[in-house]
Amino acid sequence: MAQDIPAKMSAIGFDQPGGPEVMRPGEADVPQPGMGEVLIHVAYAGVNRPDVIQRMGLYPAPPGASPILGLEVSGTVVAIGEGVEPEWLNRIVCALTPGGGYAEYCTAPVDHCLPVGDAIPLAEAAATPETLFTVWHNVFERGVAREGERMLVHGGTSGIGTMAIMLGKAFGLEVIVTCGSDAKCTAARKFGASHAINYREVDFVEAVQDITGGKGVELVLDMVSGDYVPRNLKCLAEDGRHVTIAVLGGMKADINMAVVMSRRLTLTGSTLRPRSNQFKALLCAEIEANAWPLFLDGEICPVMDRIYPLGEAAEAHRRMEQGEHIGKIVLEVAGG
Amino acid sequence: MAQDIPAKMSAIGFDQPGGPEVMRPGEADVPQPGMGEVLIHVAYAGVNRPDVIQRMGLYPAPPGASPILGLEVSGTVVAIGEGVEPEWLNRIVCALTPGGGYAEYCTAPVDHCLPVGDAIPLAEAAATPETLFTVWHNVFERGVAREGERMLVHGGTSGIGTMAIMLGKAFGLEVIVTCGSDAKCTAARKFGASHAINYREVDFVEAVQDITGGKGVELVLDMVSGDYVPRNLKCLAEDGRHVTIAVLGGMKADINMAVVMSRRLTLTGSTLRPRSNQFKALLCAEIEANAWPLFLDGEICPVMDRIYPLGEAAEAHRRMEQGEHIGKIVLEVAGG
Repeated sequence: MAQDIPAKMSAIGFDQPGGPEVMRPGEADVPQPGMGEVLIHVAYAGVNRPDVIQRMGLYPAPPGASPILGLEVSGTVVAIGEGVEPEWLNRIVCALTPGGGYAEYCTAPVDHCLPVGDAIPLAEAAATPETLFTVWHNVFERGVAREGERMLVHGGTSGIGTMAIMLGKAFGLEVIVTCGSDAKCTAARKFGASHAINYREVDFVEAVQDITGGKGVELVLDMVSGDYVPRNLKCLAEDGRHVTIAVLGGMKADINMAVVMSRRLTLTGSTLRPRSNQFKALLCAEIEANAWPLFLDGEICPVMDRIYPLGEAAEAHRRMEQGEHIGKIVLEVAGG
Repeated sequence: MAQDIPAKMSAIGFDQPGGPEVMRPGEADVPQPGMGEVLIHVAYAGVNRPDVIQRMGLYPAPPGASPILGLEVSGTVVAIGEGVEPEWLNRIVCALTPGGGYAEYCTAPVDHCLPVGDAIPLAEAAATPETLFTVWHNVFERGVAREGERMLVHGGTSGIGTMAIMLGKAFGLEVIVTCGSDAKCTAARKFGASHAINYREVDFVEAVQDITGGKGVELVLDMVSGDYVPRNLKCLAEDGRHVTIAVLGGMKADINMAVVMSRRLTLTGSTLRPRSNQFKALLCAEIEANAWPLFLDGEICPVMDRIYPLGEAAEAHRRMEQGEHIGKIVLEVAGG
């Protein structure tokens, strides 16, 4: 049975772009679920790098999206919009949201929700959709990764990195990561990386060549870009693919096109948030069929860094920006 | 019935890399067809840009290939190697060769041959394989071009350019080309280009935006590279593909990876000659099934520039390097 839904809710707002300090707890109208949407009473909300970049003013929300940060939540469906089957009421789900996750209530298209029930702790469920959707699409669809191939991932202990390790391993990839400390390398190996390279101590290009016997990896999942790109290309085997999902190290890359051509490399990339609802629904259905059972069975569970109360979202952002986290940072809202 | 095969033949050799003048008519041993190969009595040999680059010493022949230039021929099968069905004897074919085309006799794997019979004049048949294989693979396989899409091709009156226009048009693409003169633009339109841009007079990026109503093209087939690459990327629609098949304008490209990511562009490329015999055989079979009937029916015939006698190969190279040609340059050997 649906609980009473108030008109106002607590949410984290920010009036203008800036450092973590611009975020402050405030009050907002509880959103109404539109056609095909559900209203989720939020238990936990995941914190992601795009939230930080949006807060800085460098990644504006798409037209029509909530001005509130937050791209993934877990919680209970407490109201449904037109066209949604009533069976969805009271379901415990996690969801990729179009924004608005840092709040007590959040809407999401029903076909961007994954069933959680009591199979997955709600903090972990909230920590899953954004990295799962991103890794699945970019590694297996865009990057066409196949069983037995080798993948290089930078930021091996980030939310994306840990998801790429676990998902890659579960689907038969050998995952090589780079990390910024020996402690992080040890953690990455514990999560399933076959090799972890401390990029502060060794040249990762040489390390990858050593590890692969000079053959290189079939896939690079890159969130650094900039001057990492030509180095990444040196890590690729013939017919290798380079997939860009963030440009944290800079946008400009000097590329030798003769090498791209003669070694038949492919460079591509994508961002998730601006994609159409229809695309995300198709991706969600594919993930529910192929990957989600591994989460429901407990074979894969996201690596959890820290949980902050919603009111301390600024602290959560500070931690992400300091880069000391290992795995996912989440905000506790209603909890559970 | 097979003709008598001499032990020696005329061929164009060059002792050291250099300008066209290093090529000189000489004598060479007639090659023996190996396992799965045929020996072709050459009627005509096509001249291609890679021949020029190889003569300059910048594109060495792969291990085991003939030191003689020439990547495509037409002619009559006069001997067969082990494992080749005897029906191949006396067949008139054109073939992608591993090198060795600038000569009276040339070997090729039997499954790199296309049947010509009396359907296609032999000079045109010799002018076809290299550009047909290159365009087919890079536009339809690597570039995943689909009916109704728009493709930008530089060098619209080159051998590759004219083949891309005709093959693209035959398979439902709208082909936009760039050329270096109004006369070449007129020629390119005559061959089927929907738009031809004189790049010396207008900025091709602006022209493509005008032609496509700001949407851009789905595919760029690029043989220029260098500083054309960032300009090409500005011509691409979202999800567009950029396929590099030569780097005539330089190898280094400055690429904005944030644009690649946010617009979901794909950059790739390939070269044909170093691919395995098995790959070329698969490509040949696909072309024979899907594109070759259009050539046998006369719906597509390669654009012919000039025919030179084999002994004037140096003149043929000079013409290609001057860039005045429109369509294919071929060498007459036995003729026919």
